[in-house]
This record gives sequence, structure tokens and C-alpha cells, in this order.
Amino acid sequence: MRVLLVVEYKGEYYSGWQKQPNLTTIQGCLDQAIAKVANHSIVTHGSGRTDKGVHAYQQFVHFDTCSTRSNDGWLRGINCHLPDDIRVKFVKVMPDDFHARHSSIARTYHYYVNTNSVSSALLPKCMLHFPRKLNLANMQNAANLLIGEHDFSSFRSSKCQAKSAIKIIYSLDIELRENNVVLIKIKANSFLYNMVRNIVGLLLDIGSGKNTVLHASYILDAKNRNNGVTKIAPSGLYFMVSHYPDRFFLDHLVEKYLF
Amino acid sequence: MRVLLVVEYKGEYYSGWQKQPNLTTIQGCLDQAIAKVANHSIVTHGSGRTDKGVHAYQQFVHFDTCSTRSNDGWLRGINCHLPDDIRVKFVKVMPDDFHARHSSIARTYHYYVNTNSVSSALLPKCMLHFPRKLNLANMQNAANLLIGEHDFSSFRSSKCQAKSAIKIIYSLDIELRENNVVLIKIKANSFLYNMVRNIVGLLLDIGSGKNTVLHASYILDAKNRNNGVTKIAPSGLYFMVSHYPDRFFLDHLVEKYLF
Repeated sequence: MRVLLVVEYKGEYYSGWQKQPNLTTIQGCLDQAIAKVANHSIVTHGSGRTDKGVHAYQQFVHFDTCSTRSNDGWLRGINCHLPDDIRVKFVKVMPDDFHARHSSIARTYHYYVNTNSVSSALLPKCMLHFPRKLNLANMQNAANLLIGEHDFSSFRSSKCQAKSAIKIIYSLDIELRENNVVLIKIKANSFLYNMVRNIVGLLLDIGSGKNTVLHASYILDAKNRNNGVTKIAPSGLYFMVSHYPDRFFLDHLVEKYLF
Repeated sequence: MRVLLVVEYKGEYYSGWQKQPNLTTIQGCLDQAIAKVANHSIVTHGSGRTDKGVHAYQQFVHFDTCSTRSNDGWLRGINCHLPDDIRVKFVKVMPDDFHARHSSIARTYHYYVNTNSVSSALLPKCMLHFPRKLNLANMQNAANLLIGEHDFSSFRSSKCQAKSAIKIIYSLDIELRENNVVLIKIKANSFLYNMVRNIVGLLLDIGSGKNTVLHASYILDAKNRNNGVTKIAPSGLYFMVSHYPDRFFLDHLVEKYLF
């Protein structure tokens, strides 16, 4: 039986999603917690491999099991064995051909930037503190240049192992939220390693006037990751939702606002 | 010279606002930090004495000094000597007859309740987790019974030292925010010790169906604090703003939404 979990986590104290020896990771914690409820060992598959310090509002995870539990039994049981900063929010039994990663047709990330001159005492590790006046219109114009199918080699990490750097950005929106918080929302079929953080870095450089709008085209066209794009801190980055074909009936799990 | 500070803090790790021997408090931290910038000892006065674990988005604080610094010099200097979860956000030199507490004509508190069945991994100590379906209309109807000038003896703590229990609630609004978060906003001329947390406890009992709307009148009319009102946890409570007469020109520091 294949079970889907939707998981929320604060990445602050974890070495990212992926299980690694001698490191505390989200996947490692989940595998252990689920195994205690299932009574057998578990390997979870996540929709997106979030990096160290990156958060998730709705990470999509599946695992296979021969044990039978009610959806609520899985949810309450697994949460009992997880730390407070990782929570299973939703459980659904899925058909065998569902795969949290391979079935996903798109992912949405949000990046929150606090532009106030003083950092937030109440939400310290939830946003990037970037105390500059941002030109949001310039940021949106630059963002529009990145939308569509492109070779995003300029925005990949040196550690990126993807065969192809061609990805499709479906939307990339800049929004002003309350209290001078700027939200950058990005939806793509999938992402290269560090692609979101490199794009946010480019947009902040443009928004703060360090570079012009057209610099986005210049960087994109260079197809070269050694071009001085600033990779931005993970603290403001959230995996918001994974999108699946209609036949999996997961459309009610939509993108939301955190702040 | 009398200087006003607007201060944001996360109350989680503090024994409340008021300075106490051998305890870490907000006032204690501020007095120490300001003294380092002023080069003389400092006694701050806060608009509201928040309790252990209660947060502030805009606490109003004043102190007297014979040292001369620019507003920005105070702000940056004091923040240098404060922990990350206490931040000075605004500085203004005030006339000598201004007093953060005595000049205040009203205060606004917000209380955030997360009604989702699963607690939040991302914002763990920022809201009360109350996993019940709430009838917001009933809560608002009960709240309306408390608005106005009343004897609020039923909502004071046994430790409350106020001479009179008569206070004026100017507004008490129940709002549904994103992600099933319920916000309770209360503005009054001033508050008795634990008054907000006791009122929120009453409203949650009514919203969850444990008590009827008219129970609010019954409790209010009893004028007796031994009536079974549930004092609710401090984690969801925020001191949002203090209101002053127009002549102090502080009206731009308005109430805002955190979530």
C-alpha cells in the first residue's frame, strides 16, 4: 500500500531533506517515526529535496507499507514520534503508480524578504532580513524575463547533478505583503539545485538597484554558473506545494500565504 | 531629555516585562542595553507590563537621559546590546510630560489561535494551538456583551493589584485569518492583570460550544474571579500598540497584522 503524507517543517535545525549518515535530516526523522508506527523499516520519497535550513509548508512524501492503519492512525502515530518542528498535516492512501517526486508536474516555492531596517524579533529565522528599499516593478520586469522554458545553467549550483538544465518556469510573482515583507513566488516543472535561491539573489540585486532589469537576460543567456549571481540564505525559503495530475485528486492542497 | 522607544519582542524565553531580581526580563535587558549607550544607569517605563511568555509587536517604552545621541544612534546602539528576540524599531525624542504608561489612553492586544487539528511546525510558540471548530458568530456575539465600561472583576487575576476593576473595552473583534487561524483583537483604556487571557478563555469556551453566548453576561455580572473562567496560555498573546493623545504625534504607529 502506498501512503502519501503532507509534511510541514522548519528547516532551521536540520541538514536538509535527504537522509545522510551522522546528520539530522527531515527524511531521516520521518523514516524513523513512520517505522515505529508501521512496525517495519521505511524509505520515504519526497517531492523536493530541500536544502539545509530550507522550510516546507507542504512537502509531499510517500512510502510503501504492508501495515494497515487508518489515515488518522498514521497521522497521530507518526506525529507522536516526530519533533515539534516536523508535523504530518494530511494522510491519503494513493494508487500504486503515484510517486511523490516522479508524478509531480510542478512545484511552488515562496521566498520571504523582510525589508524593514530592523530585523524581526518575533520571526527571526522565518525570513531573509534585507534592509533595503526594493523596486518591485523592476523585480517583476526582470522576473518576467525568466518565465518560460530556458536553460537555467546560470542558476545551478556547482553540486547540481541534473542531466539537463532546461526547466520551465510557469510563474514568478513579486508581491508586497504586510509590514514591508516582500514575497517572491515561483512555480516551475522542477528546479535545479539552488535555482530558487540564485534567482532570488538576482532579483534582490535588481530590486536594490545594484543591477538593471536587463541583467536578468544577460545572466540567463550566459548559461554559465560563474557569473556572480548571489545565492541567498535559506532562512526565507519555503517549499509550498507540489502539483499533480488531476487523477490523483490532490488539487485541494493549494498554495497559501504564511505571512 | 525623554526618549521613546517602540520595541518588538518574543516573550518565550523571558519572565515577562518587569525587572525582577535573578530573572531575565524584557525591562532588565533594555535597561542594561540602553545604559551602555547612554553611559549612565537607566530605568525604563513600559506602556504595558506583559506577563511571562507574552510577546509584543509594539511595546512603548520611555527613559530619561542626559546623554545626546541621534535617533538612529540610539536605535543602532541599543540593538547592538540586545538579544535577537528584542528589537528597538523606532526612536523619538518626546516632551517631558510624555509618559509611556500614564499618557496612554488605550492599548490594543491581539491573540492568535491556530484551530487546525495539527499544531504548526513553522510557528510553534507564536499561537495557541486549539484544535476545535469554533463558532465565530457566537464568539463575536459574546464579545459584544463585554464591550463598554464594566466592572471586570471576573476577569482579573488573584495577583491583580489594581484599585478599581472598572475598565472600558472600546472594541473586541473576532476575525478568521488564513490557514484556519482565528484572531481576537481587543482595545481598552487599560487592562487588569490577566484580563485579556481570561477573556480569550471565556470566548474559546463559547466558540467551542462548552458555554452559550449568554454565559459571557453571566460571568461579567458575577464580578467575581472564582467563576471557572479558563486563563489561556501566553503564547498567542501580543501587545500590539499603545494609543496616545494626538498632541504626541504617534498616530502613525498603528495596529497591524502579524499573521
